[in-house]
Amino acid sequence: MENIFEARQENLKKKLIENKIKGLAVFKDENIFYLTGFYGKDTGSIALITKKETVLLTHFIHFEQACQSVSAKNTRIIKFLGQKFNKLSEILCEMDIKYCGFEGSGISHDSFLRAGEVLKESGIEITNNPGLVEDLRLIKDEYEIKAIKKACEITRDTFEFILKKSSDKIRKFSEIGLAFEIESSMVKKGASGRSFDLVIANNRASSLPHHVPSGKTINVGILLFDLGCKYGHYCSDFTRTIFLDGQKDSKNQDKLKKLKQIYDIVLQAQVKAAKACRAGMTCKELDHISRDFIDEKGYGKFFGHGLGHGVGLEIHELPTVSYNDDTILKENMVITIEPGIYLEGIGGVRIEDIVLVKDGGCENFYSDSKALMVLE
Amino acid sequence: MENIFEARQENLKKKLIENKIKGLAVFKDENIFYLTGFYGKDTGSIALITKKETVLLTHFIHFEQACQSVSAKNTRIIKFLGQKFNKLSEILCEMDIKYCGFEGSGISHDSFLRAGEVLKESGIEITNNPGLVEDLRLIKDEYEIKAIKKACEITRDTFEFILKKSSDKIRKFSEIGLAFEIESSMVKKGASGRSFDLVIANNRASSLPHHVPSGKTINVGILLFDLGCKYGHYCSDFTRTIFLDGQKDSKNQDKLKKLKQIYDIVLQAQVKAAKACRAGMTCKELDHISRDFIDEKGYGKFFGHGLGHGVGLEIHELPTVSYNDDTILKENMVITIEPGIYLEGIGGVRIEDIVLVKDGGCENFYSDSKALMVLE
Repeated sequence: MENIFEARQENLKKKLIENKIKGLAVFKDENIFYLTGFYGKDTGSIALITKKETVLLTHFIHFEQACQSVSAKNTRIIKFLGQKFNKLSEILCEMDIKYCGFEGSGISHDSFLRAGEVLKESGIEITNNPGLVEDLRLIKDEYEIKAIKKACEITRDTFEFILKKSSDKIRKFSEIGLAFEIESSMVKKGASGRSFDLVIANNRASSLPHHVPSGKTINVGILLFDLGCKYGHYCSDFTRTIFLDGQKDSKNQDKLKKLKQIYDIVLQAQVKAAKACRAGMTCKELDHISRDFIDEKGYGKFFGHGLGHGVGLEIHELPTVSYNDDTILKENMVITIEPGIYLEGIGGVRIEDIVLVKDGGCENFYSDSKALMVLE
Repeated sequence: MENIFEARQENLKKKLIENKIKGLAVFKDENIFYLTGFYGKDTGSIALITKKETVLLTHFIHFEQACQSVSAKNTRIIKFLGQKFNKLSEILCEMDIKYCGFEGSGISHDSFLRAGEVLKESGIEITNNPGLVEDLRLIKDEYEIKAIKKACEITRDTFEFILKKSSDKIRKFSEIGLAFEIESSMVKKGASGRSFDLVIANNRASSLPHHVPSGKTINVGILLFDLGCKYGHYCSDFTRTIFLDGQKDSKNQDKLKKLKQIYDIVLQAQVKAAKACRAGMTCKELDHISRDFIDEKGYGKFFGHGLGHGVGLEIHELPTVSYNDDTILKENMVITIEPGIYLEGIGGVRIEDIVLVKDGGCENFYSDSKALMVLE
């Protein structure tokens, strides 16, 4: 040993024993990558993990790629064309496995039922064993931390480059145009693409936490960026809110003044949580540090989402850092800290960092200044 | 009447009656958009369709956006924060619905079980009713056809622009760099982004039908483009294979000669199927027109995927145009026709059009020449 994928498979095998199952069929793309090194999107592949070996079942069209990607010695790759549950059934029979765990969180209810019928014909029963791989993915290994850090670095560097432009120059772009300018720049810096549909939200649109960038030209006022890229299949997530100066628009001055006050509150709430974050505390304790502060300032009801979430192969993964989540933060979890305040019809502010949880503190993957910025 | 979303809801209500259910909870993003006009990715929203009204249940962070998107009069929007199945339970109780259909193809098995437990506490039973909205989506309405056509037009125009570059110029790009150049160009032409991760596959990589573009600089030889964009949330899909000329690389001349022969076979197979395609034939009949021809030429086992698939809100949707699918093609279905031959270690050729099925024929959404092209 130790191939990293073999090591992960070994960790999962301990969970199989705990859950008293001889095999686990894994369906989720990210989990299959985590365990085998084969990455595909909606490929319909199955990774079957058993005590003895791992079988990666993949469609003809992904077979050659799977062979190139898989390095773990104990992983067999088998191709199917159509009827994959019949193939799975054959393999389970050959292995003499009569009860097989199914990753119920990674397969639709309808497919689960169909698979159950097919496997039953060979006398095989399936059980719902959701979230076992996600449990492992909670704690990042060295390779994962390196990849996330690099994705964060590319994102921050790209944003810093944008900040070098003048307000005039940024206002030549549409929201969607700027989103693509940013993605293309992240790719030039080594990313494989965006980690989610980038959010560029100008003025009123910034009160929509997941605004879809429009074709409208960017205007003087507030501009929220929620950006992220992928590096080695790992995601970054990064939100900054800035102000664009230009010709004064007197009727919006009051709104902008208010948004600048709110910026200060969100920033304080963000910094307080990042300072407090450490292994041993619960997610809800961390959430409340920001939430209680925003509440005190009178904006509690305008912070309508959790403080953060895990980031890794998926842009949103465990843990859920929200006001009612009891998960205890552990060393080498990677989470976002992203409080926000959203005023319908006026605008919104969100500031987001990614941190690596450590004993006694955390490491922030972004080191840029978050002081209120007005681009001239 | 008739708001388009109301019309679609009415069509679905007929299916509720056929299936003897009073309400259907819909989970899939695309289906929610199809029925309500609210588009989000992984928002965790639920559209509940009943005889009397539609309720769109959405998280706080998507609420304002949902309110802006929904135009159907009979659609109520309700926000939740956490525990959405409790909220669904409340609404069903209020409507006095004791049996509720669940779109089992759009929810994970594990979530289905959890929802079942929550709803059971209020005496509500749920059943698996998969694919009802997908059934409606098989036949495209006027609005959908227009959107797909426009997405196809943008894609083809972008590709034509690429073809105006010289071989030298294209060989300055990496595969991934060219992919982003193309996406950015599609966005400039009005697309909202790519409809899937674009495939740019050079030489050996072209034998991987779903190759992930690499950072390697493009070389003389074969170059496969599988491109698509979104317009108004509808997808295009488009594959062309070309040859790049340049300094002769004598050891690869044999491979290139072979790939050019294969190009001719794939093109003939593609054109034959496109000519034959019409309402009333089955998907497998259409598939066999290309498949049998490729088989005759001795390459049957190198065409390892179905001839095509439906395209619409999703890049792959029903029908499945494969060698064993009995679906009868009907007027206003939109499908791809994309045979391919893949030779491991050498390269592959695929040519793909999108057609609108009509009585007595079909309309091809791409009108460019597909004659073998060698860029100089």
